[in-house]
Amino acid sequence: MATVERLSQRATASGSQPIGPLMHLALSRPELISLAAGFVDQASLPTELARKAIEAVLADPRHGQAALQYGSTPGFLPLRELVREQLFKADGAAMAGKHISVEQVFVTAGSNELLHLLVDTLCNKDDIVLCAEPAYFVFLGILRSVGVRAVGVATDAHGLIPEALEEELTQLEAAGELERVKALYLGTYFDNPSTVSLAEDRRGAVVEMIKRWSKKSTIRILEDAAYRELRYAGNDLPSLRSYDEEGDTVILTETFSKSFSPGLRVGWGFLPRDLVGPVADQKGNIDFGAPNFAQHVMASVLEQGLWRPHVERLRDHYRQKKDAMVAACDQYLGGIPGVKYPRPNGGMYVWLQLPEGVASGPGGKLFDYAVEEGMLYVPGEYFYSGGREAQRTDQIRLSYGFQSIERIERGIAMLAKALRRVLG
Amino acid sequence: MATVERLSQRATASGSQPIGPLMHLALSRPELISLAAGFVDQASLPTELARKAIEAVLADPRHGQAALQYGSTPGFLPLRELVREQLFKADGAAMAGKHISVEQVFVTAGSNELLHLLVDTLCNKDDIVLCAEPAYFVFLGILRSVGVRAVGVATDAHGLIPEALEEELTQLEAAGELERVKALYLGTYFDNPSTVSLAEDRRGAVVEMIKRWSKKSTIRILEDAAYRELRYAGNDLPSLRSYDEEGDTVILTETFSKSFSPGLRVGWGFLPRDLVGPVADQKGNIDFGAPNFAQHVMASVLEQGLWRPHVERLRDHYRQKKDAMVAACDQYLGGIPGVKYPRPNGGMYVWLQLPEGVASGPGGKLFDYAVEEGMLYVPGEYFYSGGREAQRTDQIRLSYGFQSIERIERGIAMLAKALRRVLG
Repeated sequence: MATVERLSQRATASGSQPIGPLMHLALSRPELISLAAGFVDQASLPTELARKAIEAVLADPRHGQAALQYGSTPGFLPLRELVREQLFKADGAAMAGKHISVEQVFVTAGSNELLHLLVDTLCNKDDIVLCAEPAYFVFLGILRSVGVRAVGVATDAHGLIPEALEEELTQLEAAGELERVKALYLGTYFDNPSTVSLAEDRRGAVVEMIKRWSKKSTIRILEDAAYRELRYAGNDLPSLRSYDEEGDTVILTETFSKSFSPGLRVGWGFLPRDLVGPVADQKGNIDFGAPNFAQHVMASVLEQGLWRPHVERLRDHYRQKKDAMVAACDQYLGGIPGVKYPRPNGGMYVWLQLPEGVASGPGGKLFDYAVEEGMLYVPGEYFYSGGREAQRTDQIRLSYGFQSIERIERGIAMLAKALRRVLG
Repeated sequence: MATVERLSQRATASGSQPIGPLMHLALSRPELISLAAGFVDQASLPTELARKAIEAVLADPRHGQAALQYGSTPGFLPLRELVREQLFKADGAAMAGKHISVEQVFVTAGSNELLHLLVDTLCNKDDIVLCAEPAYFVFLGILRSVGVRAVGVATDAHGLIPEALEEELTQLEAAGELERVKALYLGTYFDNPSTVSLAEDRRGAVVEMIKRWSKKSTIRILEDAAYRELRYAGNDLPSLRSYDEEGDTVILTETFSKSFSPGLRVGWGFLPRDLVGPVADQKGNIDFGAPNFAQHVMASVLEQGLWRPHVERLRDHYRQKKDAMVAACDQYLGGIPGVKYPRPNGGMYVWLQLPEGVASGPGGKLFDYAVEEGMLYVPGEYFYSGGREAQRTDQIRLSYGFQSIERIERGIAMLAKALRRVLG
């Protein structure tokens, strides 16, 4: 019989993800009001639209059978054409005259899978990916699992700070590590968790800077635009991709998980030409391409014009939930000195700064008291890689995506009670 | 501007897969009769059954919305319960008294994705996986991509030869490499490409042997049962899993891609208890779990009793196509000395031995003549890892899955013509 069980380095690293115990707690204590999970609002999920789209796919047996067959590795061509058109429409004048071929559109089962695929395609163990921090913790987990070093770059109320990026690249070059830097990762729309969108006047500068620092080999920008459509105020901004004249630097990733259904799970990205083959080769090894049927369904949703009106309804729906969470924060937390939170214009989160000295991590007083009071949040420290920048421990992420307005309000009241207990 | 583009080791290895040029040829020359692709028969794909199952999922808005929401990482619980029951039913007496909990059932988007996940969880670069050869070339590609060394183990008309496995393990131990051996991979039902099922009287011996050689750590058996349901003659055999008393060795993987629809893409596996957490952690990093909607649809297919009768119809359908291909081989190729092919009792392939000295690989005469005549096959050498065993170059895989009977017959006639040209 065996006496020692060893897993791969990747599996060992994956097993140490900090979010694991939190998810376990949420599952084992279903009575808790979780403002932690990034789930979308279940009541908003479009069963009637899905039925309509599926009926259209299955109405013609030949079309239906094509949808039930294996697809191609890069994805269903009409869907790729449709999301390409969508990008040119969203970016408007910013993309005018620029070219992205349909071959550069790559479909995956959600955009997270594409981010994983890109890290796996671009990076070896001990390579470096720069991350605007706080950063989506699942992406930090991907880097940890692949053995890639995340290097945090500071952000402010306008997103990634270009001067901080320049400083970090300068230091990495001085340390002889520039060649290890494979990518910069950042969310450019209502980022998870900061809720900030990268300011328009910084977008060109970031792309220019990364191109300038691509001295011996191209540093890619992984532009995560998962929340672009969940915009409740202000104008849409042009994507980072639209500032990339050569199209060799920015890889824009998007998804229908937030704007239609995460259960169908269709995401996509726009790849530089030189990465089309390598990403397809990698994906071919894993599963030959994203599930075909869901791609036909999403193409049908778009072709029938069902998506855009649904997004408009979603915006109204989430805007109310966002307003409710902000109002509850104002009511219950606003009077506590040192508590701060930017008012989000989109996305699914409120990013809360605690009073100085209050730690939010698991095992700390606030976390334990919050659970005692009956609610869950995500500790802010999960969104930091723990690199050169000191890990912030006095922030928390709250999601208004999944819970009802009534439960959002109760959850915030519970959090306030826990915080007041910590503050004595 | 960049001057050197470097990809990860994995991406570089993936880019060198031998099947790439073949797929490219098939896509660029659609007029060719491809007996190469492993696609299922499109006319057999069950649009009406899919519609019925989907209607049931969407009929109740609460159920429909749950299906359109994120699922859990290991998969939809009722589906996992159903495929668990299915295994106990299929294995019958062989599994009686054995226990597999529903927690050990893990769902992925097709079983290939699970095989990839398992390799990534178990193996580091330079580890070893033993492969019954000829072996499913996509699996060999996974190993190459992860940097794992495939070591071929000989098979005969009854599948993997236990004495060859013992000999290989003895040699690896002598070379100080036993600790690197993480798994044995084999298809146990109508294997792709050999069409052979591992003989019943070898099944227990293989499991016993691997357990005996698990001296310091457990060597796993990856049992690929993708074709189990496509059985056209003979009785079903008990799975290797049913010989694993402790349940720590055999990981049985299955899929609905062949027996229902590859476009929905639902596969699953039964994991040893100690791998449940690690596999879920890895999958969580990649995409949080297989697409949820398709899992609800497959659960509905099973709950409504739609699957089993469909499998019976499929068997009749493929049996006819298999008979047609074998008859065409008999008619056109049977008279050529040295040509041999076992008569398959299931699966989607005919595995053809060419006359001595005739090479089937790309760039060789037979391959080029076959394309000139208008057909495509998969060269047999792709199914060998090129390890200790000499790579066989005088075999080819023919699929009767996708093409119509009429085109199967024409394709075989073309192949015969090409072969006669080679033989002069």
